[in-house]
Amino acid sequence: MSDIVEIREVGLRDGLQLIKTPLTTQQKLEWVKKQVNAGFNEIEVTSFVPPKLLPQFSDANEMVIRSNKIQNLKATALVLNLKGATRAIAAGTKKITFVISASEEHNQSNVRCSIAESLSMFKEVIKLCNISGRKIEVAGAIATSFGCSMQGSVDEIQVLKLASSMAEGGADEINLADTVGYANPSQVKSLFSKLRNSIGTIPMAAHFHDTRAMGLANVVSALEADVRKFDATLAGLGGCPFAPGASGNIATEDCAYLLENMGFDTGINIQKLIALRNHLSSILPNETLEGKLSVALPAINF
Amino acid sequence: MSDIVEIREVGLRDGLQLIKTPLTTQQKLEWVKKQVNAGFNEIEVTSFVPPKLLPQFSDANEMVIRSNKIQNLKATALVLNLKGATRAIAAGTKKITFVISASEEHNQSNVRCSIAESLSMFKEVIKLCNISGRKIEVAGAIATSFGCSMQGSVDEIQVLKLASSMAEGGADEINLADTVGYANPSQVKSLFSKLRNSIGTIPMAAHFHDTRAMGLANVVSALEADVRKFDATLAGLGGCPFAPGASGNIATEDCAYLLENMGFDTGINIQKLIALRNHLSSILPNETLEGKLSVALPAINF
Repeated sequence: MSDIVEIREVGLRDGLQLIKTPLTTQQKLEWVKKQVNAGFNEIEVTSFVPPKLLPQFSDANEMVIRSNKIQNLKATALVLNLKGATRAIAAGTKKITFVISASEEHNQSNVRCSIAESLSMFKEVIKLCNISGRKIEVAGAIATSFGCSMQGSVDEIQVLKLASSMAEGGADEINLADTVGYANPSQVKSLFSKLRNSIGTIPMAAHFHDTRAMGLANVVSALEADVRKFDATLAGLGGCPFAPGASGNIATEDCAYLLENMGFDTGINIQKLIALRNHLSSILPNETLEGKLSVALPAINF
Repeated sequence: MSDIVEIREVGLRDGLQLIKTPLTTQQKLEWVKKQVNAGFNEIEVTSFVPPKLLPQFSDANEMVIRSNKIQNLKATALVLNLKGATRAIAAGTKKITFVISASEEHNQSNVRCSIAESLSMFKEVIKLCNISGRKIEVAGAIATSFGCSMQGSVDEIQVLKLASSMAEGGADEINLADTVGYANPSQVKSLFSKLRNSIGTIPMAAHFHDTRAMGLANVVSALEADVRKFDATLAGLGGCPFAPGASGNIATEDCAYLLENMGFDTGINIQKLIALRNHLSSILPNETLEGKLSVALPAINF
């Protein structure tokens, strides 16, 4: 197994979804640039959702266009449906993350359609990308892969079926997301091991929340199941709409420090990352920032 | 490997070491009783250190005597030297945790003597227990097993040599402590695997701090190396004297929830534990309480 592990920053998307005071486009782009400078090659810069619902992403078009001008960066955008994908493609997005929930109830609540309808939209999106005349990657992301706060348990078979359908439909990557923080390390190892068998050599990615403190333990288990790519948000931004006060995604800086300590190569400059995290606390004064590394600082022998 | 895992609460000792407002003996005993009621069988109730240095433990004698009257509880006490051990034995302690640092510099600063001197005191303590006329267990705990904030890296060989000496000296358990939060999961798996080979069938225990967010990931790695006993503090009490604001031990409630989710049997009632954690926030109003489960609450399918 490779000792290179990639962290994809999703703080500008997942991290800003519940935010009280939106950041300006300028502030977001400064964040993106600083993060690329700290060694990140893939950053989810926005979400193509209706601006009426989430006004903090109303600059999605501009974010993609201006991020595409930053060297050494693959800027990705999240989409939930055909309309979002059409806007993302028109803006020139290099990589799309298309989300479908493994829980029927969660998909209805999140996208207002059935899983089957989402899946047929996904296949349409692949076609649109193919006829666009340029290379657009599409990651298939499966929300509530490890459990759902509405439905409860989610069957592994359901997740694997959906993953296989997305893989056969042309996904360049399969991302299993623990949207509500239900995953535990045993479950993570089991599901990703089965996923590897189901989708062949297609890259796998993991998206963990730290809602119940198991985020980094889940990362370690996913590593054992050959996962080499993780979503994370600086300062653990993100929260959970169903549990006020609960923490969000795994913190990028803590995850990077964990991986580097375990001997993996992330390409990330930890000191620059801590500096960026401190910059975030100045531009997000009303948010609760999580993450322990920026308080304790790296070990003296790191 | 067994699916039974024990958590030893050390909040009344490690958790109260840096506390601003000391608890009364009555408050401590109420805490102990509630924790036994939540399913805990072993609790470190105090530390036999000079009352002038740590006045919050000046009731050590009374804590041991009164804890010994609680059914289904093995109350343990921490000691650092012969004087502390003599007091602990006189009080009727059922189990002593004797601490030696693997880092010479840390041992000098913590106990004001060399590792060799600590080790010869340890052997004296075993003799005192043997001639006491009653069964007293002695755990050998090795501080800074995974690194030292003064010395930096700590050699595995040094830890294993010390562990073997304590095992040969008659230790009933060997506890490796990540005193300053330097351990990472790869290191944990490596060191505990080697420890198992060094000390035969003597039970192993792990004491992790969550200073750099790796605490629960380290628990999962230790489980893979056959560790079935973990120290933890409710609400992650503990802090770090060298990093103001940094978090303390792994949180008991988060650790118990992790283990139960992974299918291990801890014997702990999670709801009662969350209730006790909330009780703590009322008796420790000036402390920063950590831990995520009490905010997010268990998953609906737990």
